[in-house]
Amino acid sequence: MTSIKLIEAAADRLKGHARRTPLLSSPFLDQIAGRRLLIKPECLQHTGSFKFRGAWSAVSALEPKVRKRGILAYSSGNHAQGIALAAARHGAPSVIIMPSDAPRLKIENTVALGAEVVLYDRASESREEIGNRLATERGLTLIKPYDEPQVIAGQGTTGLETAEQAAAEGVDSADVLVCCGGGGLTSGIALALEAHAPGLRPRPAEPEGFDDTARSLISGRIEENSQTSGNICDAILTQAPGQITFPILQRLCGPGLSVSEDEAMRAMALAYSRLKIVTEPGGAVALAAALFRQDEISGAAVIAVVTGGNVDADLFQTALDRFAD
Amino acid sequence: MTSIKLIEAAADRLKGHARRTPLLSSPFLDQIAGRRLLIKPECLQHTGSFKFRGAWSAVSALEPKVRKRGILAYSSGNHAQGIALAAARHGAPSVIIMPSDAPRLKIENTVALGAEVVLYDRASESREEIGNRLATERGLTLIKPYDEPQVIAGQGTTGLETAEQAAAEGVDSADVLVCCGGGGLTSGIALALEAHAPGLRPRPAEPEGFDDTARSLISGRIEENSQTSGNICDAILTQAPGQITFPILQRLCGPGLSVSEDEAMRAMALAYSRLKIVTEPGGAVALAAALFRQDEISGAAVIAVVTGGNVDADLFQTALDRFAD
Repeated sequence: MTSIKLIEAAADRLKGHARRTPLLSSPFLDQIAGRRLLIKPECLQHTGSFKFRGAWSAVSALEPKVRKRGILAYSSGNHAQGIALAAARHGAPSVIIMPSDAPRLKIENTVALGAEVVLYDRASESREEIGNRLATERGLTLIKPYDEPQVIAGQGTTGLETAEQAAAEGVDSADVLVCCGGGGLTSGIALALEAHAPGLRPRPAEPEGFDDTARSLISGRIEENSQTSGNICDAILTQAPGQITFPILQRLCGPGLSVSEDEAMRAMALAYSRLKIVTEPGGAVALAAALFRQDEISGAAVIAVVTGGNVDADLFQTALDRFAD
Repeated sequence: MTSIKLIEAAADRLKGHARRTPLLSSPFLDQIAGRRLLIKPECLQHTGSFKFRGAWSAVSALEPKVRKRGILAYSSGNHAQGIALAAARHGAPSVIIMPSDAPRLKIENTVALGAEVVLYDRASESREEIGNRLATERGLTLIKPYDEPQVIAGQGTTGLETAEQAAAEGVDSADVLVCCGGGGLTSGIALALEAHAPGLRPRPAEPEGFDDTARSLISGRIEENSQTSGNICDAILTQAPGQITFPILQRLCGPGLSVSEDEAMRAMALAYSRLKIVTEPGGAVALAAALFRQDEISGAAVIAVVTGGNVDADLFQTALDRFAD
C-alpha cells in the first residue's frame, strides 16, 4: 500500500529528474474566485502533465533486469507520454496501447518520446487482450495509470511540494482541488497532505456527467460512469475510482466538485491570460471549480492543481475564441 | 552604478514578493536547437514579465515618504504593469504614461492593477512633457524602464537564479540569450553571471531591423534604431541601449543575434506546444534565436530567457494558426 514513506522515497528518486513546479497566482483570479487562489501548474512538468512523476516513480522502482525487458502501459495520452519518457531515460523499451481516437498530439508525442504505440479501436477491440499478448510474448511489465502503489507514490510528490510551497505563502488552511480521473493523483496528494499539511483538505474535481468519484464519496462505494467518452476533458474520463485509490479518497477527501465543459474552457482562457500557462480541458477542471464554484468552497484561500497542458491547438483556440477577454 | 552587491541586495528585497521561475526544457526543443536548451520563463513572473523584478527593486528602494507621494513611469506595457503592482503592494499611487497604440491587454491590466493611466499619441505628443508636468504638480518620482541602477539590479536577480539553476542542471558553460530592448535585463543578468557563473555568457537577442544593441556592440558606441514601431515585438522596440546599460553590455556581452517576426511567432507556437507557456513576440525572440540561429551559437548547451507573455489573444492565435503542428 502507498504510505507517506513510499511517497517520500519516490521524492528521493524523482529528485533531479521531475521538475519542481512553482505555485502561481494572479490578483485577477483572486477577484473571480472571491478568495486567495494558488495554482500548482503540473502542465509545466516534463511531458506536460503530472503523470511523469508516477511514471518515473514506478519505472525507477523496478528491478533493473525486469525494467530492461520493457514496460507496458494503457493510456489515452498523458500516462503514455510519462511512461515513454521515463522508460527511455532509464534505457528501457516501452509499449503503449492507446485508443485510436486519442488526441493526435498525445499519440505523436508518445511515439516521438521513444515508445512503440499500438492503437486499438475502443468499440471493437479489447486493450487488455492486446496487452496480455504482448506482455507474454516480450516479458513486459504493466504499469497501471493509477491503481498502482508506486504510481500513487510518485503523484503524491506533488502534494509534498504543495504543502511546502503553501506554507511559504502563509497558507496553512485551504481546500486543495485536484482534477480527478482514477484518483491516483488525488489519493497521492491526500496522503502527502495528511502527513505534512493537515490543514489542507484534498477534494476531487470532475467534469459534470463524469463525477464517479464525487458520487462514490457520497454513497460510500465505488460508483461508475455510464460512459468514458463524449466530453472534452479526455484526460480524466475514467470509468470509476480504483480499488486502491478509493479507500484513500474516502478516508481523506472532502466532497467532490464538478464543472461543465464551458467552465473548463473558460478556465483555460483565464489560465492563458492571467497565468501564461497552457492547460488542457481535463487539466483545468480544478481551476474552473476554484473560480466558478466559490459557494461550495470555504476558507480564505483555495489551491487548485492544474494537471496537464497537452491540448491540440484547434481546441485551445476554440477556448480563446469563446472566452478570452 | 549597479554592481553585484546592488543585485544581491535587490534579491533580498524581492524575496517572498517576486516569483522564482523554474528552468524548463523539452527533448523536442533540444532536437530543433541542435543542443541542450534550457528556458527561463519570466512570462510566469507576476504581471507576466520580468519587469516586476526591476519595478519592485526600485519601488522598495525609495524612502517611504517619497514613495507615498507616488511613482511615475513611461511604458508601452510591461514596465507599466510591473510598476502598477509594485506600487500598489507598497500602498503607493502610480501614474503610467502609455502610448495610445499599446496592446489593449497591457493598458487594461495596468489600470486594473491600480495605476492611473494617461494615454498619449506617439506622433503628436511628448510623453516627457506630460510626465514632467504631472511629476511637478504631484511630487511623483520617475522610475525609468531600464536606465536606472535599481531597476537593473532587480532584473539582475533573474541572472542570480539562472546561475544557480543552470549549475543544478550541470550546465556551467553556455550562451545565455536575452530578449533585449534598452538593455536593463541583459545588463543585470550580465553582472550576475559575471559574479556567479563566469562560464555563462550573456548575449542580446533582438528583432531584425531593430538590432540597435547588436550594432552598438560592433561599432563600440550607442547606435539608434531608425524607428520604434512597425514590428510585432512591441515590448523590445526601444530607440537605443541606455547610457548606463550600454557600458555594461559592452564589457560583458557576446555578439547580438536577431530574428524575424515569423521566427518569433514560430517560437511562440513551440513554447505553446512543448513548454506549455504563453509568450509574447518580444518575449520569444531569445528562444527563437536559440532554436533557429544554431550556427551562430557554440557549446553543448544554450539558455534562453523568455521575458514576457502579455499578448492579445488574436495575435497568439495567429501564431498558432500559422505555426502550431
